[in-house]
Amino acid sequence: MVTVRILRLGHRPARDARVTTHVGLAARALGADGIYLATKDPSIVKSIEEVVKRWGGNFSIRDGVQWKSCISRWKEGGGTIVHLIMYGQRLNEVISEIRKKDRILVVVGGEKVPRTLYRLVDYNVSITYQPHSEISSLAVFLDHFFDGIELEKEYPYAEMKITPMKLGKKGKSNA
Amino acid sequence: MVTVRILRLGHRPARDARVTTHVGLAARALGADGIYLATKDPSIVKSIEEVVKRWGGNFSIRDGVQWKSCISRWKEGGGTIVHLIMYGQRLNEVISEIRKKDRILVVVGGEKVPRTLYRLVDYNVSITYQPHSEISSLAVFLDHFFDGIELEKEYPYAEMKITPMKLGKKGKSNA
Repeated sequence: MVTVRILRLGHRPARDARVTTHVGLAARALGADGIYLATKDPSIVKSIEEVVKRWGGNFSIRDGVQWKSCISRWKEGGGTIVHLIMYGQRLNEVISEIRKKDRILVVVGGEKVPRTLYRLVDYNVSITYQPHSEISSLAVFLDHFFDGIELEKEYPYAEMKITPMKLGKKGKSNA
Repeated sequence: MVTVRILRLGHRPARDARVTTHVGLAARALGADGIYLATKDPSIVKSIEEVVKRWGGNFSIRDGVQWKSCISRWKEGGGTIVHLIMYGQRLNEVISEIRKKDRILVVVGGEKVPRTLYRLVDYNVSITYQPHSEISSLAVFLDHFFDGIELEKEYPYAEMKITPMKLGKKGKSNA
């Protein structure tokens, strides 16, 4: 059983609301089990929990988490810490090694990441060496980690479910 | 020579500034050639063009584009229109077919997408059937389309370039 959680640093309430919500939703849709926010922000927690209630699965969110002790706890529990950052190793060089681990904490930052973080983690990984987005970086990382299998994932206990089709809209509500 | 451009619908200036900037940067970093905005917004154009100037490559951006005539022009020019949407076909079912095409316009929307769009495009494609983000959807699509090759792409004419390394920061400025 593989567990992947995200630790989101540098979230500023209001200002980063949409980007952090997208980080959380992308994490959930692409196979992660939960997200920790290193900031207190009940509005994000609420919006993610509403999606989980409606769309199913067991994705969890916790805000106001101390990032250093979060990383320490994961390390003590045998977890592997992967930091997504522009200045790191190529994804292709490390992904097969990381895929062998079964407890992964993926750290994604905002603009400013504490310097000490680089040395606390097991892998600093770059998703390209170009500027883009924590959302797209996380998406590519998770998709490579789960090797596309996450795209077919089913979510139990869902009120809403979409039936794949070629044209048009077909939603099913169990609510 | 494969050309991939993005058509971004539903952008609202100011409100969507960061999300649309992330869409543009993810498009550029993951191998696309340019983006059209179906809204006038010079501030987004400026911020993307600054990244291109600094980080290299030939990514182009145009705002204030009429989405219908943009799609028509691409169709007339033999292009394939791929619309990323929650209600569509599975990525895995269509990606090998789409990979054979050499001119792709990827349409990503905001919340409200004009109904007629579904019928104007060649493919409605779902990146999972879960709610997430146009940024993560586009990232997964481009990464599957280019099959990970885009992660190694080099950008000519760059002022800035990062040297891959295991720990720490090493940027090179040619400016």
